[in-house]
Amino acid sequence: MNDQTLEQLGEIESLRRTVARLTPSVHALVGSGDDAAVIVADQSFVVSTDTLIENHDFRLDWSSSFDLGYKAVATNLADIAAMGAKPTALVVALVVPKTTKISWLEGFADGLDASCKSLAPGAGVVGGDLASGEQLVVSVTVHGSMEGRTPVLRSGAQAGDIVAVAGTLGKSSCGLALLQSENKDLINSYDDWVSYHLRPEPPIQQGVEASIAGATSMLDLSDGLSVDLMRICKASNVAIELSSKELQGFEAMLELPALGLGVDPKNWVLHGGEDHALVATFPSNAVLPKAFKAIGVVTSGEPELYLDGVPLEAKGWDSITGK
Amino acid sequence: MNDQTLEQLGEIESLRRTVARLTPSVHALVGSGDDAAVIVADQSFVVSTDTLIENHDFRLDWSSSFDLGYKAVATNLADIAAMGAKPTALVVALVVPKTTKISWLEGFADGLDASCKSLAPGAGVVGGDLASGEQLVVSVTVHGSMEGRTPVLRSGAQAGDIVAVAGTLGKSSCGLALLQSENKDLINSYDDWVSYHLRPEPPIQQGVEASIAGATSMLDLSDGLSVDLMRICKASNVAIELSSKELQGFEAMLELPALGLGVDPKNWVLHGGEDHALVATFPSNAVLPKAFKAIGVVTSGEPELYLDGVPLEAKGWDSITGK
Repeated sequence: MNDQTLEQLGEIESLRRTVARLTPSVHALVGSGDDAAVIVADQSFVVSTDTLIENHDFRLDWSSSFDLGYKAVATNLADIAAMGAKPTALVVALVVPKTTKISWLEGFADGLDASCKSLAPGAGVVGGDLASGEQLVVSVTVHGSMEGRTPVLRSGAQAGDIVAVAGTLGKSSCGLALLQSENKDLINSYDDWVSYHLRPEPPIQQGVEASIAGATSMLDLSDGLSVDLMRICKASNVAIELSSKELQGFEAMLELPALGLGVDPKNWVLHGGEDHALVATFPSNAVLPKAFKAIGVVTSGEPELYLDGVPLEAKGWDSITGK
Repeated sequence: MNDQTLEQLGEIESLRRTVARLTPSVHALVGSGDDAAVIVADQSFVVSTDTLIENHDFRLDWSSSFDLGYKAVATNLADIAAMGAKPTALVVALVVPKTTKISWLEGFADGLDASCKSLAPGAGVVGGDLASGEQLVVSVTVHGSMEGRTPVLRSGAQAGDIVAVAGTLGKSSCGLALLQSENKDLINSYDDWVSYHLRPEPPIQQGVEASIAGATSMLDLSDGLSVDLMRICKASNVAIELSSKELQGFEAMLELPALGLGVDPKNWVLHGGEDHALVATFPSNAVLPKAFKAIGVVTSGEPELYLDGVPLEAKGWDSITGK
């Protein structure tokens, strides 16, 4: 029965089987199945959207449908965490070829569900849209609650603040490089890094912790440390000084696969995308939440990034040019 | 300058130019430009998502980018209206070929903006995602506020209720048939019908009016009157009896283009999709809001649809099979 295609089953039955695998959000007053869902809110709600496109953001020979569902949720949850909010509900728009097998769609639903359960317990998919097209596209919109706190924007960093990171730096890029090498021995040896690229585990609950600890600015690292930190510099009109000594721990985590591939892991740490780590700035007298590691300081001056006192070029991923 | 492509301008500059054309939502505490937007809410929020796909849901030789933006917003707003809610904020995920001209994207943004202004004043686009892919995909997620009212679901229809419609029936299908005829004389003669297909004008504010008037169930007609009414029948466990006499007014509106095409307009009225009219059930003693016209009654019995006492087949659009 699982070999049937979506075209054979039709939209209604395909959707029914998919939705049956999803754990409802505990925050939904009205869930999937009507014109819209209704979600509990507390004076405000937080919303963000992100899209994954076949052969641009993922390859089906690398990612299972479970991986893809997991990653689509994880990367979106990170945007909510980066506001200091708690994720509550997601809607998922999926475009697939009509020759797609129902088993593929069921695996995708399982990935969505596992990601919610693991990274944001209580949050869940409350609606979506399933349609056919030539190229696979996953578009997720995620919602969260500020629970009465003030949103942590990119624009609040102050000279004197500490810059700190929760999560990994460069691990996703390292996994991507391993996959791109097509070297099966390396891919098998370092499957932890490969797995992180395919199913990232952003520090979602640490976003709320950062907010409570007084974070003055925060974002999630989707395009790379340098380009994303530069966004804080510009929005806050400050400079940031990174210390390579403080980044050594992140490099050390990538040393073995980097050696296997014959490359310097520093580029992954400074410019690699898709880790979805949280980077935040905290007042110098703040007690950093346990998951956060200091990597630099905010200074006054033109928006600019420095590494050990030397200007650092901000470079990362552009979702249009793919460069 | 407007001949530049998105690839030449890059993601950041393309987005900047697009966002500059959008009127902010009056409901946004934090708008476009951070990891997420923050929207005012009142104990709960309503959310729905819908996707339009090139060559499945629209054709670029028929739709301008303005049309496409307008329609993407209008069809999504209708889902919020169908809950009895007031639209507040939208996020838009757009996948376009990187050879797309910035002028096309600007026209699309103007369409999004015009649709919000015309159909749901005060609501606006608060975020989005722009990425490149081979096939054009527009995925809109829309939010609304119940303003303290109870959501109007599909499941509340009661035997004895009046079935009533606000908006058009069959007009969009008629416009589509005119376009498909490729008969330029007919297309020019009946451009009002063609325009409705390309830029539908659903009765958005009438959703709130229906809720206040005591509507027991409601949905927006996206797939066709018969198939959508059958959804109310199944969810509410009731039957619905339509009267062809009450539908004559809708048929009369389509008579001239139907004559030109040599077809019977009744099929468009009963089974045509994409009108995004609101169909609702009201208690028999309710005073119908002015925009609603009675077309039938709810009766007890197995979920089934009747026209003048004869069972009516529920048939409409399936977004996977395209039939």
